This record gives sequence, structure tokens and C-alpha cells, in this order.
Amino acid sequence: MGGTSSPCASCKLLRRRCSPDCIFAPYFPSNDLCKFAIVHKVFGCSNITKILKNVPVEQRGDAVRSLVYEANARIINPVYGCVGIISKLETQVSELQMQLAVVEEEILSIKMQQEFIFTNGST
Amino acid sequence: MGGTSSPCASCKLLRRRCSPDCIFAPYFPSNDLCKFAIVHKVFGCSNITKILKNVPVEQRGDAVRSLVYEANARIINPVYGCVGIISKLETQVSELQMQLAVVEEEILSIKMQQEFIFTNGST
Repeated sequence: MGGTSSPCASCKLLRRRCSPDCIFAPYFPSNDLCKFAIVHKVFGCSNITKILKNVPVEQRGDAVRSLVYEANARIINPVYGCVGIISKLETQVSELQMQLAVVEEEILSIKMQQEFIFTNGST
Repeated sequence: MGGTSSPCASCKLLRRRCSPDCIFAPYFPSNDLCKFAIVHKVFGCSNITKILKNVPVEQRGDAVRSLVYEANARIINPVYGCVGIISKLETQVSELQMQLAVVEEEILSIKMQQEFIFTNGST
């Protein structure tokens, strides 16, 4: 981590001295170069810095996790990235809502049918 | 667009000459500075260029739309961005799947009950 003998993954990758107040050090340990390389490839160093500085310290871990997820999604799907995942999930939600409406309609119809039979007797 | 008298939104914002082969010109018209400003704020110019160059020309329009969506999500939610939307949708999908399972179970139970009544006669 910042200031210790081993520079963090970002400082290692960018070949610079890892200062004790390095903003990346707590989230990008030196043994996981890939994690920083991915967000660096998609967002670039100065943008990650800006994004992290814009977030309270206690939420930076979550911000880094979301940036890594987002960058991975963009590498897997260069055209749609995370938006491709959102689009698929939105379709899934719509389909499930439709299925649920159909099944609820079916229950209502069965219950009405049952009520009719109990009131008028089965044929 | 690129090469015409009016520079595209990105060249206007970055105060540079809009060349006829400007990669941004087809997707960032000069009358919508905000669209480029948003993606520029989150991804930075060189990263947008890299992402667009990595995508076939016929899919760059879609790539720009997804980048604008993603950048907007990061501005609205600086900690989770698009991943916050994905997380909410995943929860919604799980809840709907559970509701559907419950309702399908209910239908099965009603149908079995009905079958029993038709076989053994109503009481």
C-alpha cells in the first residue's frame, strides 16, 4: 500500500513512486495488477482519480468495485458494455411481469369457475 | 459535422479544428454540447476515442448511446453508476421469479384440489 516498500498496482503499472497518500493504494493491491489495468484501459488514470475524489472515502471501495465491473463489461461487450446487461435485465423483467400477469389471470379465472361450481353445483 | 463550417460538439468543447475525418463529428452534433460534455467528464477524450476505434463504424452510434447512458448513470450515482441500476434490476428479477414460483405453486394446488373434487364429488 501507499508509502510501504511495495507500490500499489496502479503505481507499479504507471511506473511511479507510490506516495503514502496514494488514492489508489487502498483499493489496488500490488498483487492484482489486472484489476487496475482493466479500469485504466476503459476510464484512464485521471478519470478514475476524479471519480474517486468525488466520492466519500468510506464509499470508495464500492466505487472501485463498480468501476471494475463496468470496465469488465465494456471489455467483454465494446459496443454496449453495462448497458447491454441493463437492456437484457429490463427485457427479463418485462417478460416475468407478463408471465405473472398471465398466471394471476389464470388463478382468477379458476377461482371464479370454482365459485360458480360451488354455487350452482357441478354438472 | 467534420469539415463543415460548424465544428462538432467535441471539437467545439475542446477548442480544436474539426477535421473532415473527426471520429466524434457523426455522433456529437454542434447543437448538443451537453451530450459530449457528459461522456467527456466520465471517460475523457482519449478513452472515448479508443473505445470508438475498437468498434466497427456501423456500431459506433450504438456505442456512443451506451457511453452517454453509462456516463449519465455515473453522474447521477457517483458510487455505483450503471452497476446500481443492474443491482436493482437483478433484485427485481429475483423478486418476480419468487412471486411467479408462488403463484404457479398456487395454480398447481388449485388444479389438484379441483381434480380431487371432480373425481370424488364435492362435499
